[in-house]
Amino acid sequence: MDPSQVKIPPMKDLTVDNITENVIRINSLCEDERTKYVLERLVTHLHDFARETRLSSQEWMAGLKFLTEVGQICTDVRQEFILLSDVLGLSILVDSIDHPKPPGSTEGTVLGPFHTHDAQELPAGASMSKDPAGEPLLVVCTIRDTEGRPVPGVKIDIWETDSTGHYDVQHADRAGPDGRCIMRSDERGVFWFHAITPVPYPIPHDGPVGRLLKMLRRHPFRPSHMHFMFEREGFDHLITALYLRNDPFETSDAVFGVKDSLVVDIKRAGPEYAAKYGVKEDHALLTYDFVLVSDTETRDLRAKNSQAALDKLGRKVKIVNGLPIPDLD
Amino acid sequence: MDPSQVKIPPMKDLTVDNITENVIRINSLCEDERTKYVLERLVTHLHDFARETRLSSQEWMAGLKFLTEVGQICTDVRQEFILLSDVLGLSILVDSIDHPKPPGSTEGTVLGPFHTHDAQELPAGASMSKDPAGEPLLVVCTIRDTEGRPVPGVKIDIWETDSTGHYDVQHADRAGPDGRCIMRSDERGVFWFHAITPVPYPIPHDGPVGRLLKMLRRHPFRPSHMHFMFEREGFDHLITALYLRNDPFETSDAVFGVKDSLVVDIKRAGPEYAAKYGVKEDHALLTYDFVLVSDTETRDLRAKNSQAALDKLGRKVKIVNGLPIPDLD
Repeated sequence: MDPSQVKIPPMKDLTVDNITENVIRINSLCEDERTKYVLERLVTHLHDFARETRLSSQEWMAGLKFLTEVGQICTDVRQEFILLSDVLGLSILVDSIDHPKPPGSTEGTVLGPFHTHDAQELPAGASMSKDPAGEPLLVVCTIRDTEGRPVPGVKIDIWETDSTGHYDVQHADRAGPDGRCIMRSDERGVFWFHAITPVPYPIPHDGPVGRLLKMLRRHPFRPSHMHFMFEREGFDHLITALYLRNDPFETSDAVFGVKDSLVVDIKRAGPEYAAKYGVKEDHALLTYDFVLVSDTETRDLRAKNSQAALDKLGRKVKIVNGLPIPDLD
Repeated sequence: MDPSQVKIPPMKDLTVDNITENVIRINSLCEDERTKYVLERLVTHLHDFARETRLSSQEWMAGLKFLTEVGQICTDVRQEFILLSDVLGLSILVDSIDHPKPPGSTEGTVLGPFHTHDAQELPAGASMSKDPAGEPLLVVCTIRDTEGRPVPGVKIDIWETDSTGHYDVQHADRAGPDGRCIMRSDERGVFWFHAITPVPYPIPHDGPVGRLLKMLRRHPFRPSHMHFMFEREGFDHLITALYLRNDPFETSDAVFGVKDSLVVDIKRAGPEYAAKYGVKEDHALLTYDFVLVSDTETRDLRAKNSQAALDKLGRKVKIVNGLPIPDLD
């Protein structure tokens, strides 16, 4: 490198008190305003964290060693950094910021690490679970927009564990997808299928994140739930899940995913459902009416929320490509 | 797990605004007060970072992918998380907090990733470099305590690159240590040896940290320097380095290590040095008087600084085992 090309603003003699402004200044050569803003906040919070805790060299090294182990345990089928983000409440926070929901629409929740891309599309009324030990469950849902109109043609990804609390990908002898499928909503916005009643299960806790939970005396369990992901052009991508009421872990989900509006009761099919969907009376039944938000409405709400949150912090920002950057004009 | 054992304080319906207090509450089962405090500050800053930037799901995923790559490139001889900490200014900050220096003592700086444990102890006057292309340099130093008394018997670890800017460990065909040695100070607190004049070099930039620097339009160079590490019972472990004045990267060190008090001039040996150390007149000469701080003085200063910094932030803390925790009495 030709030293005459060095365009870094000069700095030297860095102290506890001036290091942050210097790092921000050296990073300010970056031409992308959004990256510059994200890095400025990252460096500020990272340094404030060290200053407020008076972080010791030993703790710093323990932290770097922990992060190294989190990275090294990751494989194609295990993402320990997502898990770390989940147990620190960051995943649910980012989802709430990026996918704001107007009143009356279905709330989102954490994706978790078990979604796959090989689920088969099944016709209405099919069964997505091959587990004979699971309690059979009829699921009947509708999808509407925020004005109450049925939304047909939505691609719905659905996944749940088997009756032992394991996803198909957690079985070494997995032959193909099980406990997961793709459905499409019909012209009335309806989709329905047979599944099994969800059970609680622990997140993978044999790695560094499991050790962290143990150190914090937290359990690794998630309450019983079924995952849903909704995709249709013109609508904000919705990642959500339905949780069973009165699950023992309902108020202590290891990844902070439960929201009141997503907690449901398992009901029993009456004569009408039994006749219409071909099940015996008293068959376990889950019904839910999902409400999707349009892309436009989401974008406007996200920008409005961002502006309001940053105004409250006294920061003058402008929204560019849907994300805030400092407004220096 | 027996759900009746769940002692987690109940939570549900987590929002952008209440997620942080909930995560802190669930972590508060941890019995170690220091861990609890560090986690509380970590979660607060992590969440505030996401809230202030309105972090998008896409940026969140890019960040997790980056951290995964940082972890996965680490090996026994490469620690990319230390490098990341270095380029974000965290390493120098933690060193400044953990190893505070009273006026008149030698300041510390970043360790960097190239210290090894296999350097040989050499006698006074030995040469630590086998590189014939390097410019020979005589180094003569003294070590004193803060009251000016010579400190004998100090173990001094010294390391530098070869004339091409590479440490011995960066050469695939490394036969053994080169450009590094261990010395002991004599009864007058003196140690002296032959080395080569340091040259600037880039930190490893073929990995994720290098890509980050490139994105930020920062160069990866460190100004010419020689590393020193001092160890003697009763004294605070000192990790430092001497930097050559007027190096092209003197004010733009990629890892923020340069401090005014550590910048030195390469001088020329006069008749006295030439005679005393057996070199020709005009031989390149580096001299420095290091001042070590006692363990006790460091511990007291660290506690005093911590208390003052946290008082300034309006936090009531007490110092336990040298580190602050909230004072709830």
